[in-house]
Amino acid sequence: MIRVGVNGYGTIGKRVADAIRAQPDMKLTGVAKTRPNYEAEAAVRKGYPLYAAIPERSDQFTDAGIDLAGEVEDLIIASDVIVDATPSGVGEANCELYETYDTPAILQGGESADAVDTSFVARANYDKAEGADIVRVVSCNTTGLSRLLAPLQEEYGVEKARVTLIRRGGDPGQVDRGPINDILPDPVTVPSHHGPDVKTIYPDVDIDTVGVKVPATLMHLHSVNVTLASQPTVAEVRQLLSDESRLFLVPEVAGIDGTGKLKEFAMDTGRPRGDLWENCIWDESIAVEGNDLYLFQSIHQEADVVPENIDAIRALTGRETQEDSMAITDDRLGVGLESLFDGPRRRVVPHSADD
Amino acid sequence: MIRVGVNGYGTIGKRVADAIRAQPDMKLTGVAKTRPNYEAEAAVRKGYPLYAAIPERSDQFTDAGIDLAGEVEDLIIASDVIVDATPSGVGEANCELYETYDTPAILQGGESADAVDTSFVARANYDKAEGADIVRVVSCNTTGLSRLLAPLQEEYGVEKARVTLIRRGGDPGQVDRGPINDILPDPVTVPSHHGPDVKTIYPDVDIDTVGVKVPATLMHLHSVNVTLASQPTVAEVRQLLSDESRLFLVPEVAGIDGTGKLKEFAMDTGRPRGDLWENCIWDESIAVEGNDLYLFQSIHQEADVVPENIDAIRALTGRETQEDSMAITDDRLGVGLESLFDGPRRRVVPHSADD
Repeated sequence: MIRVGVNGYGTIGKRVADAIRAQPDMKLTGVAKTRPNYEAEAAVRKGYPLYAAIPERSDQFTDAGIDLAGEVEDLIIASDVIVDATPSGVGEANCELYETYDTPAILQGGESADAVDTSFVARANYDKAEGADIVRVVSCNTTGLSRLLAPLQEEYGVEKARVTLIRRGGDPGQVDRGPINDILPDPVTVPSHHGPDVKTIYPDVDIDTVGVKVPATLMHLHSVNVTLASQPTVAEVRQLLSDESRLFLVPEVAGIDGTGKLKEFAMDTGRPRGDLWENCIWDESIAVEGNDLYLFQSIHQEADVVPENIDAIRALTGRETQEDSMAITDDRLGVGLESLFDGPRRRVVPHSADD
Repeated sequence: MIRVGVNGYGTIGKRVADAIRAQPDMKLTGVAKTRPNYEAEAAVRKGYPLYAAIPERSDQFTDAGIDLAGEVEDLIIASDVIVDATPSGVGEANCELYETYDTPAILQGGESADAVDTSFVARANYDKAEGADIVRVVSCNTTGLSRLLAPLQEEYGVEKARVTLIRRGGDPGQVDRGPINDILPDPVTVPSHHGPDVKTIYPDVDIDTVGVKVPATLMHLHSVNVTLASQPTVAEVRQLLSDESRLFLVPEVAGIDGTGKLKEFAMDTGRPRGDLWENCIWDESIAVEGNDLYLFQSIHQEADVVPENIDAIRALTGRETQEDSMAITDDRLGVGLESLFDGPRRRVVPHSADD
């Protein structure tokens, strides 16, 4: 068993903690949190040993009636690997602590690529993480782009990718974020950081990305153009992408027209927190014009890096091959939605407007 | 004087009527409207002769205390040219009426390109409209794309244009439109109609467009990529675009970060209804990577076709050259915002958060 601690129990940390608990070869040693808020209460209810991420604030937990298992250093000592899901910039600062205890750590995409031994996307460069001290799971958008580019690069060759990222303004709980009723170039300068970030995974891929921010909270949407080195048919591209476990081709028959229904669908299937771990690619949007491939994909910013964090834990410790790790992760989480639409099934009958 | 009637007095019609009134060589014969709503009241207050667009509804106007100058056929008889700004599809149906009275007409972008003699963008194909019976001023987005492509095509050659249109869900008054908190591929299939529509202006330009709809009402935003036949510098592209009267390069010093501040700026300058007749191109966004040009531009869906309608009136009647007509239109409307930022001026001091 790999003993894993999670430092930072917010949007990503709490999801990764649940995912660790679901793995057959991992044990969650505990989670560290800065404040005794509703998420801390939930961790206690789940029976996760709770550690004070900032020792000076231990009293706040005691005052709130929450028993602590210790301080963050105790968690590090008790763990073979730490997943650091603290806010951007804090992870990098924490590395000194992890090094002190010689505990390898996995940082999130908000940290600098220069601060780590390797950036990581399971489908793309799993083997590079073995033996590393510090691995960075790239951001949700970079993960989504790399997962998509992997099969395209292998099968057809990528001459150039050009992507417009239409980004949600903030997560549903981030009430101080915007915009309201606006469409903002963000950043206004080209390229956005996503293209260079993809190059930490695929150094040789030619990719330009631009970003826009809009008044939505549920998911990002990528308008993707990839100029390929060959000219596949739409059917061939569909088959290629469909074979990837972490790419979900949203079928026309599902009647899903946007990110709202995608999330609703995820909740209807019983997904924890309505999480979508897969890139959601609109099947109808896949088009090929000469060498130019076009498609839309939606990325759930809170969820798609969760399986990547799990794989990074195994990759770092060298316990499983890429293929085996991804298969175990996918199986234990329940990654893969296309099978719900395979084979004979009842025709989708829309509810009437009255119900 | 060209006697011009406006059939349809909604978002576009009321703006075109005001613009006609401002021209030295045109006389507004009147406006036709279907219902006696707030816009009809405003037309009466401005002294515009009001005609019943649907004769059977004349009583509604009388009941509302509004005196009519007649019915729409009277307006057509009194006019040398009709600008038809009725809802999509109605314009095409009206053509029979215009033909009955041998009155040339200008339709809007919601009508089919097949229904007209020529589609029109003043900067691109002014001369094609001379002597036509029916001219179509293309939609706001197609107008914006054509204006941008014109100088790029002439100066550098366009190998291929790829554009993601991030579209406002509806105009500010369209309360039954969406989405709320969503990012919708719209249409989900590629291409959107905009690319083919640009080809009604530039048949030989290779352009792929895709559309997305978001919860915003103020303006559209285009994420533009143009692969050029040559490699200009960013400075050269800026100069080229800056020389175009209907392209406004939003300078960094203006501190305008999105469509909200753009509209606020337009209102601060005293623009009627806060209208932005120009493509608003974010100066900082202009980037050149090899042969690939990137930029963001915002398009005010209610306003950018207004000067085009005015030029179409002159083009159709053959009264002025392209250059002269555009110069008169721009001068009388006050098109051109960059000059506000030229030369010595006081440094922009942001207001404090308290005021």
